[in-house]
Amino acid sequence: MYIHQVAAYLPAQVITNEHFTRLNGLSHEWIIERTGIRERRKAAVGENTNTMAVEATERVLADAPLFPAAAVDLIVGATYTPHDTIYTLAHAVQRAIGVTDIPVVSISSACSSLLNAIEIVEGYFAMGKASRALVVVSEHNTAYNNEQDTVAGHLWGDGAAALLISKERLSPSDLLVRDLITAGAGGIGKADEAVTLTPVAKGIIMPYGKDVFIHACQYMARVTQQILERNHLTTDELNWLIPHQANLRITRNVLQTLGLPEERAVSNIDRLGNTGCAGAAIALSEQLEQIQAGERVVVTVFGGGYSYGAMLLER
Amino acid sequence: MYIHQVAAYLPAQVITNEHFTRLNGLSHEWIIERTGIRERRKAAVGENTNTMAVEATERVLADAPLFPAAAVDLIVGATYTPHDTIYTLAHAVQRAIGVTDIPVVSISSACSSLLNAIEIVEGYFAMGKASRALVVVSEHNTAYNNEQDTVAGHLWGDGAAALLISKERLSPSDLLVRDLITAGAGGIGKADEAVTLTPVAKGIIMPYGKDVFIHACQYMARVTQQILERNHLTTDELNWLIPHQANLRITRNVLQTLGLPEERAVSNIDRLGNTGCAGAAIALSEQLEQIQAGERVVVTVFGGGYSYGAMLLER
Repeated sequence: MYIHQVAAYLPAQVITNEHFTRLNGLSHEWIIERTGIRERRKAAVGENTNTMAVEATERVLADAPLFPAAAVDLIVGATYTPHDTIYTLAHAVQRAIGVTDIPVVSISSACSSLLNAIEIVEGYFAMGKASRALVVVSEHNTAYNNEQDTVAGHLWGDGAAALLISKERLSPSDLLVRDLITAGAGGIGKADEAVTLTPVAKGIIMPYGKDVFIHACQYMARVTQQILERNHLTTDELNWLIPHQANLRITRNVLQTLGLPEERAVSNIDRLGNTGCAGAAIALSEQLEQIQAGERVVVTVFGGGYSYGAMLLER
Repeated sequence: MYIHQVAAYLPAQVITNEHFTRLNGLSHEWIIERTGIRERRKAAVGENTNTMAVEATERVLADAPLFPAAAVDLIVGATYTPHDTIYTLAHAVQRAIGVTDIPVVSISSACSSLLNAIEIVEGYFAMGKASRALVVVSEHNTAYNNEQDTVAGHLWGDGAAALLISKERLSPSDLLVRDLITAGAGGIGKADEAVTLTPVAKGIIMPYGKDVFIHACQYMARVTQQILERNHLTTDELNWLIPHQANLRITRNVLQTLGLPEERAVSNIDRLGNTGCAGAAIALSEQLEQIQAGERVVVTVFGGGYSYGAMLLER
């Protein structure tokens, strides 16, 4: 299985920390120190998870002459901030690209969904029911976020990314998906209440951020070690780490546990905030051209609820 | 792949048609004539998609001594009426049964999700990443429904079901999943607006019921014929048809197109209304003991957005 192309869509509006200073009195320095976030994007009126998913899809297809839309035989969408749970983002993407009679589904495993989506693709490839998949991750956090919330209101950003994945290699520059692990950790700690998004009640809240922080650090470091070890690799042989883009302190903690220098991590948290399950995919799209032949990448994620995963890529 | 056991959970409160007569002036006879629905269930305060999923899971495990909870190595949840999109119903089920470090994901392909979930399981089995899966479908329509809506407010009911699925046969009574087709039809007709659930805007609405009706009838009949033909079976060799439980008129239309007598269809729409992606699974749980050795069942679904599918079972 190969990642052939990745592209992102980011809404135009930039929300700086000063916005939250005016709203809540949180200083730029305080937000930076606690999260590493300088600014984040906000979807415009009329934009939502479905429209951003379609934008990202159009961009990735425009960058992939070897992967025409008509060849797509599986669409897996992911979001925990749905615009529509019936006409889901995957269905909106299907309508936009005009393919018919192929499996289409949207999923949520919170901020981990990117890897769950790719693992579902791996399953369709293994069954022989698909060979060219489109994975689209899209989050509209600001639709569910209360920006007045001084605990977590300043964390969230909007954005989307799309990935073209094929069973066979299409181009020498394709990224081999060498291994992939996903898992739920719904029984761990305060997974049931630490970070939740109840659409009809409270929207997205994070009453137990410390519990999330501790488990995110532990699980992303552990599953990265696990995927390296079972592929007989050391951290010295890992060129890039793309963690879930939740908080720069979590990224630094994971790097420290793994003994990796900071320059090996790919990060967009300072510019985009926490863009949910889209964050790591946006980071991959931004890093794509810098990954040299022979280099290895681990994408590792942790999601509320809880869930975690790691994917080992090789160019 | 085999379905080892199925169980349903239905909330206790019954809402009769008289409730809608009092609210909206819709008569019992008018509702019966248009939909076949006599009554439906409503989740109690404190119940939601997650709690109903856990109830259904506890029931199915209680009925399956050969399939202990500790053996579950994959959980796929499905709903379009989520209580929590981060701590999803699949994660709540994981917490309830106490298994760790297994893939866990929740999906939506609207009312079609049961078959998408089972196809995802098929993929994990094909990869060798799982061999004992728990699929849980759960809908809390009344959380998103405006019962004052005279167009569709009277259609929806709440309920959940859980299925234990194994790669190898565990018992002579297991149902063989002989074939499975799923597909999105997001580009067809008014798929983008005919029936939608936008959590932060309008909840669940069905402004173009006729478009849904026409496509549901066409697609469920067509995909049932398709799965029979590619398995070299005629409708005479089909013992039971379990269609998506949306509307008795749709079921009758599908039966007529297929040339099947009404007694071959399994229906709970009169007692439960449209329970979304849980409907066909609840029907399967209710019918399970009546399916004789050697008999064949087709479960066929159609979902808003649109999507469709068929699954051929054999005892």
